[in-house]
Amino acid sequence: MVKVAVIGYGYWGPNLARNFNEADGAKLVAISDPKENRLKLAEKRYPSLNVTTNHKEIIKDSNIDAVAIATPLSMHYQIAKEALGAGKHVLVEKPLSSTSEEAQELIELSESSRKVLMVDHTFIYTGAVRKIKEIVEAGELGKVLYFDSMRVNMGLFQPDVNVIWDLAPHDISIMDYILGKKPEALLAAGSAHFRPGFENIAYLTMYYPDNLIAHVNVSWLAPVKVRLTLVGGSRKMIVYDDNEPSEKIKVYDSGVEIIEDKETLYKISVQYRTGDMYAPRLDTTEALKVEAQHFIECIKENRKPVTDGKAGLRTVRILEAAQESIRNDSKLVKL
Amino acid sequence: MVKVAVIGYGYWGPNLARNFNEADGAKLVAISDPKENRLKLAEKRYPSLNVTTNHKEIIKDSNIDAVAIATPLSMHYQIAKEALGAGKHVLVEKPLSSTSEEAQELIELSESSRKVLMVDHTFIYTGAVRKIKEIVEAGELGKVLYFDSMRVNMGLFQPDVNVIWDLAPHDISIMDYILGKKPEALLAAGSAHFRPGFENIAYLTMYYPDNLIAHVNVSWLAPVKVRLTLVGGSRKMIVYDDNEPSEKIKVYDSGVEIIEDKETLYKISVQYRTGDMYAPRLDTTEALKVEAQHFIECIKENRKPVTDGKAGLRTVRILEAAQESIRNDSKLVKL
Amino acid sequence: MVKVAVIGYGYWGPNLARNFNEADGAKLVAISDPKENRLKLAEKRYPSLNVTTNHKEIIKDSNIDAVAIATPLSMHYQIAKEALGAGKHVLVEKPLSSTSEEAQELIELSESSRKVLMVDHTFIYTGAVRKIKEIVEAGELGKVLYFDSMRVNMGLFQPDVNVIWDLAPHDISIMDYILGKKPEALLAAGSAHFRPGFENIAYLTMYYPDNLIAHVNVSWLAPVKVRLTLVGGSRKMIVYDDNEPSEKIKVYDSGVEIIEDKETLYKISVQYRTGDMYAPRLDTTEALKVEAQHFIECIKENRKPVTDGKAGLRTVRILEAAQESIRNDSKLVKL
Amino acid sequence: MVKVAVIGYGYWGPNLARNFNEADGAKLVAISDPKENRLKLAEKRYPSLNVTTNHKEIIKDSNIDAVAIATPLSMHYQIAKEALGAGKHVLVEKPLSSTSEEAQELIELSESSRKVLMVDHTFIYTGAVRKIKEIVEAGELGKVLYFDSMRVNMGLFQPDVNVIWDLAPHDISIMDYILGKKPEALLAAGSAHFRPGFENIAYLTMYYPDNLIAHVNVSWLAPVKVRLTLVGGSRKMIVYDDNEPSEKIKVYDSGVEIIEDKETLYKISVQYRTGDMYAPRLDTTEALKVEAQHFIECIKENRKPVTDGKAGLRTVRILEAAQESIRNDSKLVKL
Repeated sequence: MVKVAVIGYGYWGPNLARNFNEADGAKLVAISDPKENRLKLAEKRYPSLNVTTNHKEIIKDSNIDAVAIATPLSMHYQIAKEALGAGKHVLVEKPLSSTSEEAQELIELSESSRKVLMVDHTFIYTGAVRKIKEIVEAGELGKVLYFDSMRVNMGLFQPDVNVIWDLAPHDISIMDYILGKKPEALLAAGSAHFRPGFENIAYLTMYYPDNLIAHVNVSWLAPVKVRLTLVGGSRKMIVYDDNEPSEKIKVYDSGVEIIEDKETLYKISVQYRTGDMYAPRLDTTEALKVEAQHFIECIKENRKPVTDGKAGLRTVRILEAAQESIRNDSKLVKL
Repeated sequence: MVKVAVIGYGYWGPNLARNFNEADGAKLVAISDPKENRLKLAEKRYPSLNVTTNHKEIIKDSNIDAVAIATPLSMHYQIAKEALGAGKHVLVEKPLSSTSEEAQELIELSESSRKVLMVDHTFIYTGAVRKIKEIVEAGELGKVLYFDSMRVNMGLFQPDVNVIWDLAPHDISIMDYILGKKPEALLAAGSAHFRPGFENIAYLTMYYPDNLIAHVNVSWLAPVKVRLTLVGGSRKMIVYDDNEPSEKIKVYDSGVEIIEDKETLYKISVQYRTGDMYAPRLDTTEALKVEAQHFIECIKENRKPVTDGKAGLRTVRILEAAQESIRNDSKLVKL
Repeated sequence: MVKVAVIGYGYWGPNLARNFNEADGAKLVAISDPKENRLKLAEKRYPSLNVTTNHKEIIKDSNIDAVAIATPLSMHYQIAKEALGAGKHVLVEKPLSSTSEEAQELIELSESSRKVLMVDHTFIYTGAVRKIKEIVEAGELGKVLYFDSMRVNMGLFQPDVNVIWDLAPHDISIMDYILGKKPEALLAAGSAHFRPGFENIAYLTMYYPDNLIAHVNVSWLAPVKVRLTLVGGSRKMIVYDDNEPSEKIKVYDSGVEIIEDKETLYKISVQYRTGDMYAPRLDTTEALKVEAQHFIECIKENRKPVTDGKAGLRTVRILEAAQESIRNDSKLVKL
Repeated sequence: MVKVAVIGYGYWGPNLARNFNEADGAKLVAISDPKENRLKLAEKRYPSLNVTTNHKEIIKDSNIDAVAIATPLSMHYQIAKEALGAGKHVLVEKPLSSTSEEAQELIELSESSRKVLMVDHTFIYTGAVRKIKEIVEAGELGKVLYFDSMRVNMGLFQPDVNVIWDLAPHDISIMDYILGKKPEALLAAGSAHFRPGFENIAYLTMYYPDNLIAHVNVSWLAPVKVRLTLVGGSRKMIVYDDNEPSEKIKVYDSGVEIIEDKETLYKISVQYRTGDMYAPRLDTTEALKVEAQHFIECIKENRKPVTDGKAGLRTVRILEAAQESIRNDSKLVKL
């Protein structure tokens, strides 16, 4: 039985706690949060649990095997380092860290301590994203031409990060997972309407080899929630609408072909084709349940998680580049 | 009775012909198109009309008062120039011309000849866009913070222009009309998957004074049609979904405020507020009918149209800048 | 060239006129309507046409081969009879007539005069309904278990018929076409909120052999337009949402099976299965264009139309039975 | 602190347990279910709780103040009777009982024992239904003309009840709450495709005084989930779509008026009017949380719950009448 503690019981921590409480082979044993009122909520829900305002008590408790960190981003690195140093397995909420140096250090620490380091890129564990991965890997789309994602809603304005570090990790981790390759260059634009330096709207454009382009539109200032990702290939295209209650993934038998056409002025023309659509049935298991179980299994079987430290680093690297571009008049940053 | 001829009877020309045929005070008298099979269609529909493969016959027919030009973009300038030169009123399909110099010349020609020059920025005449304009002008949104528009679909790949010149004029003209001011700088990114130099996906970001940001996402390579425009203000926000059959405009009583909060670590925090939504009833008259009628009235009453040559020029200027940015690694172009 | 006249130029007549004006092998030659202002509209649109306030002029014009009747229901029978009597082919707006006796008489008249009698059951000519027919006929649904259709909107309140005779013909004709069999019994309920005897809301339930049930919900008093038809089979089920811009038909690989289960208290249990969904690409040709062309071809080739007089009669028979049931406390009417 | 036990830990019991575990002033102390595997799940989630396969242990435990019953319907009456007899407050899952006699007996028992008897008509505690009630009570709709509800989905086929007893209690309880009056007569139709006597599709039509009509369409055999309720008044109309993530309630400024019109043949005509729509912001608190809290408060303050035994009885009475009608060829049953 893997004994798990949750550090940080704010917005996301309760979800981690609930899922580790019910994961097979795991036992939720402790929760920490600096705020007393959050701990009271935790105690009401889990009367038999240890709660503490000081996460260091969890770090030094040798009875605890693993920690799940759901603190503000600025503390991820420090706490993860302490936990790995104390011989614990670590799951860190996204993004893994504030800098790629920190991410790199955590990866090395997890390797030297032979403990699992996993990033909570939750969407990777949804039925929808796993199905997209399956379709793309099977080559059903043909050559992948673009990835376009819009993730906007009203608030929550984060106090310590901008919208890029808050929302874009979802899109970037999905993109990383599905495309299986790294962008070569990136540019970002955006606007900070309320606090200088803290963008609440941002647009990221990424260039991959072979003319593959990716775009991410994130905002805390949209009156409605939009979660729309398009993945287009030469043969088929996917629309992933996470707002849809059940048909989240639609695969369109639509494509484009170059045609030599003697009648037209231009000799060659681009013809498009639209065909049937299908919506595959998706596994509806809660993503965090799948993820919590995967973390426990990686610990038990000494395996690398799908969203390991390196996936966390790749995401942080892109976030850093976006930050760099946006601070420099959207200049193109090579990766 | 204003006698109108339609030059170009391809995709859009039939819509112009139909609306001028029924406009009060107008009489559709001639149609030209270089393709015989298109003229046969026109004759079947309008048996009493003159049709010709040579648009010059229309230009020199002194019986014709006005022409509506729906040819490929590359011919807009030349034909409009001929028509204005022959003393005719001119309506030109969007965008007005291929360059801002051409647009400027057409404006001057229309002024010297005292004829109406109007651009077919069709969306400006929809009930939806007119309602948005009304709401924004009334100050209901508070300070306008952003304009974000997504206009994607599968094809039609145009042979002589890229997706920026084909689709973005819609968004740029709506933006120009609603915001009533000019952007100071622009950057664009995109990808040409099929023909070098002919982008089929593009992203435009525009910066206005006072921290107002605008973004336009256009694509010919999306498996579904998306027509989604968000206009966000400090007090209220609008969602304009042109795919909705009746509730195209939704006004959200959502906003953001800065709060000094002693409890938080950061002293000030940004709070958001979500409230009721309303969907105003919209005039459902076909936009092109309103537009055709407006053209006729401007001719009769010697008035400037809402979408006059200057509106056409402002749109062309932004398209040019987008083109310039995209050819130079998305560099920021001052306007 | 079949010469066609349209009798009745109110709401629906202009659509018939437009389509016959453009149908191959047809020539629109005359329009009649008792209202002068409607004729003015017709003249503006078709300057070369004969227009008249007296439909009898059309009937006696031996130059006219066929008429399309789009008058109020109460005049369908009389005018169709006159037209068939004068040796013309006849297309009648739905429903064919006010009574089944009238429908029967028109069928006989068309047979004795060897002229085409066709009913304008427009939906039968949509890509959507034709595709459903194809799927059902191919046996893809397994045994058809139910047909459930909701067709509600605000107004138009008809002056001479209730909502059953106005809206339900659509659902009943679709049902008749798709299921290819006749109901054995029917019951109807409803409410007349504004004029006694003129129901503005009605519910029809029909029983077919083999436990197939059909239900139709029609209303003039719904604030939104709903066009939702479900066709459920033992193996697959169809959702037909006519409000959807492109994916009108969705086929669900969902079904139900009886399972003998020793663990349950009840020995047998009903298990359901949900699988993938697909949306076949549909022909998007305007239904009325397909229909007008079909009418012309039936005339030329001396064929029975898909929606012939008998289809019209079957629909009228059900409408009559619904009327009878609703006038008798919803009693079950055998058919 | 009110000590609560949950009897029945199948599909719905876990939701009751979770909410009582977190309700203010309540303490979840015990759970019973005849199935060992269900109890194991309960223990994993609530390690400090008493669990038992025998609900009688809960009944006789004098330490327990209240029970929430989530067993199959056939056991509601017996267990509720035992619990009230043992001096406990009782919350019963909908519907309250299998017969109106049983419901009546439970009401009397709760009155004589002075204990709270509440029915779990969950929807009454949603922000959406409470808002509709508020709008209707304020007279915003004018005279209420109809209530039309569609609640269909695939499965779950219940082993001991038909679809009327399973799904229709939701619509009937909402109707009862919103309209605040009783129907005078009812008729029902339906079909039992898999087990004779166990309808899986059913249609209920209810007549109220003053020409108000209500209709409920329930099915376990629909490939998609539809939750659509229309409430129409003479001045405004409500669309309640429970599938919508946030805008569940839309209020349309649409209505109908009778107009004396000299031009028309019929002297009077019915005109309709469509205006703006608004979607009020709704309280998004989980309904069951509101309900659990209400139960606890009613116990503490000795109050009648909103969904008391009488509301439960009114619902059961309608279900019984529907059953009677459907067994007798849909005859009209007076209530």
